Amino acid sequence: MLGYTHFSGKRHMKNNIRTVALIGKPRDPLAAEHIVRLGEYLRTRGLAVAIEAGCAALVREGFAPAHTLAAIGQHVDLAVVIGGDGTLLNAARHLAPHDVPIVGINLGRLGFLVDIAPDAMLDEIGRILDGDRQIERRLLLAAEVMRKGKIVHSARALNDVVVGKGELARMIEFDTFIGGEFVNRTRGDGIVIASPTGSTAYALSASGPIMLPSVPALALVPICPHTLSDRPIVVPSTSTVEIVMTDAQQVAYVTFDGQSTFSLQGQDRIYVRRAEHEVELVHPSSRSHFEVLRIKLGWGESH
Amino acid sequence: MLGYTHFSGKRHMKNNIRTVALIGKPRDPLAAEHIVRLGEYLRTRGLAVAIEAGCAALVREGFAPAHTLAAIGQHVDLAVVIGGDGTLLNAARHLAPHDVPIVGINLGRLGFLVDIAPDAMLDEIGRILDGDRQIERRLLLAAEVMRKGKIVHSARALNDVVVGKGELARMIEFDTFIGGEFVNRTRGDGIVIASPTGSTAYALSASGPIMLPSVPALALVPICPHTLSDRPIVVPSTSTVEIVMTDAQQVAYVTFDGQSTFSLQGQDRIYVRRAEHEVELVHPSSRSHFEVLRIKLGWGESH
Amino acid sequence: MLGYTHFSGKRHMKNNIRTVALIGKPRDPLAAEHIVRLGEYLRTRGLAVAIEAGCAALVREGFAPAHTLAAIGQHVDLAVVIGGDGTLLNAARHLAPHDVPIVGINLGRLGFLVDIAPDAMLDEIGRILDGDRQIERRLLLAAEVMRKGKIVHSARALNDVVVGKGELARMIEFDTFIGGEFVNRTRGDGIVIASPTGSTAYALSASGPIMLPSVPALALVPICPHTLSDRPIVVPSTSTVEIVMTDAQQVAYVTFDGQSTFSLQGQDRIYVRRAEHEVELVHPSSRSHFEVLRIKLGWGESH
Amino acid sequence: MLGYTHFSGKRHMKNNIRTVALIGKPRDPLAAEHIVRLGEYLRTRGLAVAIEAGCAALVREGFAPAHTLAAIGQHVDLAVVIGGDGTLLNAARHLAPHDVPIVGINLGRLGFLVDIAPDAMLDEIGRILDGDRQIERRLLLAAEVMRKGKIVHSARALNDVVVGKGELARMIEFDTFIGGEFVNRTRGDGIVIASPTGSTAYALSASGPIMLPSVPALALVPICPHTLSDRPIVVPSTSTVEIVMTDAQQVAYVTFDGQSTFSLQGQDRIYVRRAEHEVELVHPSSRSHFEVLRIKLGWGESH
Repeated sequence: MLGYTHFSGKRHMKNNIRTVALIGKPRDPLAAEHIVRLGEYLRTRGLAVAIEAGCAALVREGFAPAHTLAAIGQHVDLAVVIGGDGTLLNAARHLAPHDVPIVGINLGRLGFLVDIAPDAMLDEIGRILDGDRQIERRLLLAAEVMRKGKIVHSARALNDVVVGKGELARMIEFDTFIGGEFVNRTRGDGIVIASPTGSTAYALSASGPIMLPSVPALALVPICPHTLSDRPIVVPSTSTVEIVMTDAQQVAYVTFDGQSTFSLQGQDRIYVRRAEHEVELVHPSSRSHFEVLRIKLGWGESH
Repeated sequence: MLGYTHFSGKRHMKNNIRTVALIGKPRDPLAAEHIVRLGEYLRTRGLAVAIEAGCAALVREGFAPAHTLAAIGQHVDLAVVIGGDGTLLNAARHLAPHDVPIVGINLGRLGFLVDIAPDAMLDEIGRILDGDRQIERRLLLAAEVMRKGKIVHSARALNDVVVGKGELARMIEFDTFIGGEFVNRTRGDGIVIASPTGSTAYALSASGPIMLPSVPALALVPICPHTLSDRPIVVPSTSTVEIVMTDAQQVAYVTFDGQSTFSLQGQDRIYVRRAEHEVELVHPSSRSHFEVLRIKLGWGESH
Repeated sequence: MLGYTHFSGKRHMKNNIRTVALIGKPRDPLAAEHIVRLGEYLRTRGLAVAIEAGCAALVREGFAPAHTLAAIGQHVDLAVVIGGDGTLLNAARHLAPHDVPIVGINLGRLGFLVDIAPDAMLDEIGRILDGDRQIERRLLLAAEVMRKGKIVHSARALNDVVVGKGELARMIEFDTFIGGEFVNRTRGDGIVIASPTGSTAYALSASGPIMLPSVPALALVPICPHTLSDRPIVVPSTSTVEIVMTDAQQVAYVTFDGQSTFSLQGQDRIYVRRAEHEVELVHPSSRSHFEVLRIKLGWGESH
Repeated sequence: MLGYTHFSGKRHMKNNIRTVALIGKPRDPLAAEHIVRLGEYLRTRGLAVAIEAGCAALVREGFAPAHTLAAIGQHVDLAVVIGGDGTLLNAARHLAPHDVPIVGINLGRLGFLVDIAPDAMLDEIGRILDGDRQIERRLLLAAEVMRKGKIVHSARALNDVVVGKGELARMIEFDTFIGGEFVNRTRGDGIVIASPTGSTAYALSASGPIMLPSVPALALVPICPHTLSDRPIVVPSTSTVEIVMTDAQQVAYVTFDGQSTFSLQGQDRIYVRRAEHEVELVHPSSRSHFEVLRIKLGWGESH
């Protein structure tokens, strides 16, 4: 039951799926081929198919109605992402408020999130539609940047919110608060605030711990901290994390899932907490999170 | 509210404390002095005082009735430990089944668990008795060693259960399972299974994350693993962790809170899970876990 | 004899010092005060005093002739830096070709390079002028950026040459060669190529080893590498290190001593090797490198 | 030229090899098969063959004269080790004083030291005998334990000298001196003093840097130190490292190459320095140290 968290009162994947959205990695011809093959398969099962507008140019016109992620959120029962973890991260942030479950097909290289190989795609999607599946809810992060008392930016992240330095290899300085309590002042390259999902991404490279998806916690992982005892801290997922930039002169940025960025100023306050919505991932019932870890981290090999 | 976890249905510290046990660091004359001073103070407040048998020889005969930790567990309303974190760890393992709350006085050096300075002792204990206090429940670990289908050893730990090599600097090998699922095979010096309380002890030296006491999780921290991608894993506190020794030849031991040890054989299986009971710590209401971290880890200093 | 390296055939500090340059931290009034005090003292010893042009505005006009670092290099026998390690790094890069020995006075906080406290300044400088001193030669790094077969940038660094990502928290990718041999391909935040002097600066925060100044080696320290087995590598100081950017799209920079930066393009090749010149540091004879480490890293404290 | 160090005045591998010793992993039938095959091949080349006494029982009586490692050191021109890195470490410590060059054949799994695959064995040994080879000199460590002014134990190590705790997961405490100068006091599981050769063994698991074999340095790598700023230190290979046990009560051991161990007492002083002799390794001329690193550390794989 590991990796499966039940939250009472939350909607789970519908039993009668009618419409499926296909979301491909933009500008990837390989994705195109799989989209077509999968779309045709789904139609043989009597399902309606939509395609995400950003990748619609990959397939012939008229293959399926093209919609934005926002529209997909409102109208489909299941989304299939064909791409890498990055493609799924982007889709998940948009679909979370609509409780659309997401399946991930990887384009050739196993991902932590896109865990179905293209070769096995039709079989696995078939079984998932037949009800043979695991459903997993992953917590999403919500972040706000406050400047002089006003919210100047807000964003969601499934993996991580990163406060980091600019291009010059020069430290930034900030204070960390958890639940309003002062933790410490850090000088360094920055800090990763990671969800359990993000704990195997950037946070891991910055020496953070691996957190199982079912751990209700966030990890605060300092990046190359000047103080050597500045170590990763795991806090309850109910915590509000607050990063306060100290110095008006420094060049710093906040980045969401490594995909969008916002430029910070001195005295800016970045708040990160668990978002109201979650991301619902659908996996083949045979999927093992530990097996993915073993493959991705090379644990299985004996040198 | 950080660091304070409420568990419904669990008993909290009584309001009418009548009997207090004093538990000193054995053979430490400094502890003796504080025991006497504290015992006299408690009597002026009309409370009955008991002393733990292991440190009774430190004070004059007849100072207070001496009891074992087991008897203390059954008869007292509050235990005051005067010593280091080690003294409190030992008392806590024994008192947990009896739900006796514990306060810690440190002998000169702030501990993570013994957080009241001797100078402030009478004032702080007075305030705590007056109801001005924080109560915190810390999860305890329960471990069992299975050999050929039988339990050959069982023990509790507040900080950590450590499976480690013997004196020769030669690796041991074991498999890890979480919730019955295979995680990986590790070769190295061993592994620390730490509670949040233990996350700032040995696990931290072995590169594990700091976990706030209120995070419902355990950390599995490999010690000097041969495979460099073998990294700390944080799992839900509801998990059963299973370590299986692979090789019949290796010399390995399991240690509880760094205080007691048991010799392992090949194919032994060590099970670690959250114990049924918890440890109830009492702190001054002004105590900040982050302040303790700042002092203990030297975060406050700017070199 | 640790920390002292004798290189036969190299010029050492002159015995008859006649002219001393004072180099202060720009725009720091505290530096001004010490410059004046020190300048007056040196004149009482019959020495000529010059002031570095960048900090000349701090003191009254006519206090001393102002010169650029280049001119100082050619005309003085000793340079005294009053500031932080950053001020000394900058001076050292400019003065190294001229073999001018450098003494460092710290402004309030001990540095790895500026190790004389202002309070003890006149005494210590006096003793150094009397011949009671340690002289230490530190290797300097020389870097060149090659683009389509041409050198497009070159710079020196006393601490480190850092190839790093831009402001977005997204990995860069590069290949490393040592002595022309391929080492590996790295994805991550970047890499620090550190001298022994720089091993206690950024490289240390990125998990590199401390190297004693007398070790004839460079350290290659990957910054948050994606591959967890990508670890710091120590190579002979005679090695040529070559970093080759792989991807034409990525945003990356090379930074020298954290003080100047140059924007990289895909396929750029960065060469780092030991510079022809070295930096000659002068310390009080009582100075202990290990004592500086103990203070700066908090080794002396027992929490 | 990396990985190749020339020391003037040192003897190199003879051009006219007449006698070759075969040293197999004791009690390994797989080694037996390769020993026989290799012995027969060497005789076809007109060479005399000897076998190490510890593995002589593996082959038929009369196959070749059996000698101790000491005798082998005095009488042969080349030693071929068939086993793992451990087999070669043991042979190297014994043969170093006799300047016998060593080639390593691995039994199935590439080692850092035994780098010829059994399949390629006859070809590679043939080429080496023909003069197509790399010769590399590796520094050896010499250690002495002083107790109350007397040497109570001495040993050599090619990889590392490790001072470590006993079986109980409880810290030991010791002071480190380099060149007679106090470095710091450490509490933890122990310390690895590693040669460049040993930097990819235990020291790497304890977070030490990889040092190329040609770096004239030693690494001091603390094992799970209590003080988080206690980091690996790289010192010149000419340094004398001294570890002084502080506490009379602690249980500690010193281990050499993970193969032999000696029990320490309080106030014992362990001296480690570069041995007078070196180990001469012979490799195929095509061997690349970086390729071995890539394979052993999984650098080549992209997950």
